[in-house]
Amino acid sequence: MAIKIYGSFRSPFVMAVALAVYEKEQEFELLMMNIKSPEYMNNFNPFGKIPSYQDEDITLFESRAIMRYVATKFEGQGAPLLGSTFSEQALCNQWLEVNGHSFTPAIVEMAFSKADTESSKLAFEKFEKVLDVYEARLSVSKYLAGDSYTLADLAHTPLFHIFMAVSDDEKKKCLTSRPHLHAWIQDISSRPAWKKVTERPENTFYKPRTESQ
Amino acid sequence: MAIKIYGSFRSPFVMAVALAVYEKEQEFELLMMNIKSPEYMNNFNPFGKIPSYQDEDITLFESRAIMRYVATKFEGQGAPLLGSTFSEQALCNQWLEVNGHSFTPAIVEMAFSKADTESSKLAFEKFEKVLDVYEARLSVSKYLAGDSYTLADLAHTPLFHIFMAVSDDEKKKCLTSRPHLHAWIQDISSRPAWKKVTERPENTFYKPRTESQ
Ligand SMILES: N[C@@H](CCC(=O)N[C@@H](CS)C(=O)NCC(=O)O)C(=O)O
Ligand SMILES: N[C@@H](CCC(=O)N[C@@H](CS)C(=O)NCC(=O)O)C(=O)O
Repeated sequence: MAIKIYGSFRSPFVMAVALAVYEKEQEFELLMMNIKSPEYMNNFNPFGKIPSYQDEDITLFESRAIMRYVATKFEGQGAPLLGSTFSEQALCNQWLEVNGHSFTPAIVEMAFSKADTESSKLAFEKFEKVLDVYEARLSVSKYLAGDSYTLADLAHTPLFHIFMAVSDDEKKKCLTSRPHLHAWIQDISSRPAWKKVTERPENTFYKPRTESQ
Repeated sequence: MAIKIYGSFRSPFVMAVALAVYEKEQEFELLMMNIKSPEYMNNFNPFGKIPSYQDEDITLFESRAIMRYVATKFEGQGAPLLGSTFSEQALCNQWLEVNGHSFTPAIVEMAFSKADTESSKLAFEKFEKVLDVYEARLSVSKYLAGDSYTLADLAHTPLFHIFMAVSDDEKKKCLTSRPHLHAWIQDISSRPAWKKVTERPENTFYKPRTESQ
């Protein structure tokens, strides 16, 4: 059975799973279902969310769990993704948690906040604080977990992609004004596996904005 | 160097890390620092949160990353914690994500919601939906990931402990009215390692309520 990913590329978590599969040089089908139907909730994800994943061995949900599974199952193929030393593995796990608990809520709030409201000011401050932590980390380490690219980096790529597509130049300055962060975003976004994700016909939701759009 | 955990037993995440260390038959010191001080933020956790962890090899933050590290480092000692088959490992990861993204926010909201408000009604509905998913899972599987106790189960124990201590009988019914869930809570709460955590002198924050208190 080919790998099946349930979901749409409107979701950064679906794109992250697709990216992990491509990094491991595997192919997948992208399928969509009514995620609140009993069929989906009974067989794929009882919380009625995307992504879900299925191959000949397993059915799984939760994007970071799926990415770990894919990285482990196809360990010998493509990019390693789990860290090459014991310490890198631990730091990969740490930054993957940071991705889930600090980075994702902050960037999503920031991306979709309306300009010049009280809540947008708070979202901005919160986001800047998180980015300062990243800038400090990336000024002493090439990737989040150490010298090699791992799932911890990978989980961020779709979120930056969406942020870039929905933000004006002013908002984007948060990223471009931090040199190590900016270089890292360009690095992780220029990987061939990510190019393959963005070239899928299903990638119709977020298109790069041109300057001063 | 002995294992050092930074934080207080007021935090369920600190207790979860302590529990993982005891499950692996290790000892630890529990230390507290000003978590917003530069010393703490520069050396332990740039987000200024607890827990952080330190041993002779590493300094780490994020409770689930610390628990994975401890479970892997002391693989041959105590309870296995990571799942005994490839599929159990994947499901352990899945349910650990569920713990972080669905269960924890729902139980914390529910535990600290004021009675008879609109937001308490919403918290209650959300919590019940999550618990229904657990009841269904635990009616076909002894533990969340399969036949063996893993980090996925472990991460829940301190949250139930706190919930029980701060809730009246009415709130507790959410748990006791679901037989498989209830049996599982009793099982994971009766492990010797958890007993050791609760018997620490630092465990002064949440005391079991007596009936109709
Ligand atoms: N923690 C989950 C988050 C999944 C999630 O929130 N998915 C969203 C799309 S981005 C969804 O399915 N929303 C539909 C809904 O909540 O009804 C993961 O990483 O997979
Ligand atoms: N995702 C983190 C959560 C850590 C967390 O939220 N800790 C709380 C205590 S329960 C804290 O340090 N709060 C202090 C603060 O935010 O200032 C983990 O699992 O370690």
